[in-house]
Amino acid sequence: MLRTTTDALELVSQNRCCGGTQSVFRHRSQVCGGDMTFGVFLPPQAANRSVPVLWYLSGLTCTHENAMTKAGLQAHAARAGLALVFPDTSPRGEDVADDSAYDLGQGAGFYVNATRAPWRDHYQMYDYVTRELRGILQGALPISESQGITGHSMGGHGALVIAFRNPELYRSVSAFAPIVNPTRSEWGRKQLSAYLGDDEAHWAAYDACLLLTECGWERDILIDQGTEDQFLDLLRPGALAQLMAERRQPGVLRMQAGYDHSYFFVTSFGEDHVKWHAERLLAA
Amino acid sequence: MLRTTTDALELVSQNRCCGGTQSVFRHRSQVCGGDMTFGVFLPPQAANRSVPVLWYLSGLTCTHENAMTKAGLQAHAARAGLALVFPDTSPRGEDVADDSAYDLGQGAGFYVNATRAPWRDHYQMYDYVTRELRGILQGALPISESQGITGHSMGGHGALVIAFRNPELYRSVSAFAPIVNPTRSEWGRKQLSAYLGDDEAHWAAYDACLLLTECGWERDILIDQGTEDQFLDLLRPGALAQLMAERRQPGVLRMQAGYDHSYFFVTSFGEDHVKWHAERLLAA
Repeated sequence: MLRTTTDALELVSQNRCCGGTQSVFRHRSQVCGGDMTFGVFLPPQAANRSVPVLWYLSGLTCTHENAMTKAGLQAHAARAGLALVFPDTSPRGEDVADDSAYDLGQGAGFYVNATRAPWRDHYQMYDYVTRELRGILQGALPISESQGITGHSMGGHGALVIAFRNPELYRSVSAFAPIVNPTRSEWGRKQLSAYLGDDEAHWAAYDACLLLTECGWERDILIDQGTEDQFLDLLRPGALAQLMAERRQPGVLRMQAGYDHSYFFVTSFGEDHVKWHAERLLAA
Repeated sequence: MLRTTTDALELVSQNRCCGGTQSVFRHRSQVCGGDMTFGVFLPPQAANRSVPVLWYLSGLTCTHENAMTKAGLQAHAARAGLALVFPDTSPRGEDVADDSAYDLGQGAGFYVNATRAPWRDHYQMYDYVTRELRGILQGALPISESQGITGHSMGGHGALVIAFRNPELYRSVSAFAPIVNPTRSEWGRKQLSAYLGDDEAHWAAYDACLLLTECGWERDILIDQGTEDQFLDLLRPGALAQLMAERRQPGVLRMQAGYDHSYFFVTSFGEDHVKWHAERLLAA
């Protein structure tokens, strides 16, 4: 097992898991201006070679820990030979701006680079995920440059946005019940207004539907969505479905009968998503 | 999905999961003298027929919820066609005796019928699991009489004790890092003394090693144990291993290299255990 605490990464915990290792690291983030914590699963194959990595971005109120302990992705990643990375959903700490609402501030970073006070000092999650943490991991762990990204709810939004804007970095993208059209949802307008200001022109860079319209995505997309999701109106999967049809966008949107927004939904389809990414990342 | 709240069972939550349903019920327990909560997973096969059931008993500090959300057993049970039941680890409530220690009182029922004050009024977990809850479930849910039992740590102790004492009720038994010899461990002596009194003769009915010596077990046993388990000295797997060898007891004790006592260990070998029980319960 990897037990090194490097200058960059402090090992918080490490557990043997599914033949590999599930670790939690803390590190000083330059872009977020504070300590950040994340989880990483290395599959058994990483003992001998660099492995592709699947990023999992979590939803509102989550930390690095929720998916790591509840989604059951490690068993599938171990079979496929993928590393998993579980970043936090926002900067944390007493000196970091926050809000009493569950859907703004700590735990609700929305994977944007904030430009407005008081958020801009620390809320730089887009750069943190795409640039800083990626660079640190590729330097410190046996992971290759072959990367895919997925996530749940707010994290599904983050995965789609990050992939669409960085096709040279992410070879595969999928999402569980993502917020796909935040500029037209109360899960989005409130936060984009707070973090980016009231000029909606600045919001477009963080809306999956608008990005797909503007930039396209040359590969395929996998999205699972529960029909009994209590937040369906806020997620707006229909907007993306319509857009995919109109644009002849390769991909699959599966409306899964009876499933809600919980981790029981994520765990039910986690194997499909890991296999789907593995096929694309290992072939690349 | 099963949405009925019967006279006996109040539905607390229900989530579609792995093609089946993960439900939580609350009910009035006669033997524990108060409300009890438990989780139950019904696989897709239960829509058409009665299915065998695997009981999962949790460890110290856990509730009905820990394994239900963190062990990832539902996917395997859905494939195999087994129901899963996750009982709580003790009675609960303000009128229920408790202790400030994590390993005595609420969350630490040790699956015994307490005979000493203040515990005896509510702490009747052995009867609750083997008799009351089993009877309620068989009356209310599409589960057959084919039952297996497993558990983790204190719950592994419970699973072994309950199976060994009730071979007519449980056709298969396994455990994850079980406390196998509580009469010789501080995870056991303290609790058995509190719940049953100081006469150690009364403790023998709750010690897997002593029960195996006295009664035997005509079927096989599967036990997984991590080599890096931080509680190895309290669990005493060596005592059971020695006994199994001496008695020519069919079974497997797997010392799993590098694994600790966490749910990452349980989730790593959950598939093996579910398959192992399914082979025995579905063949019966």
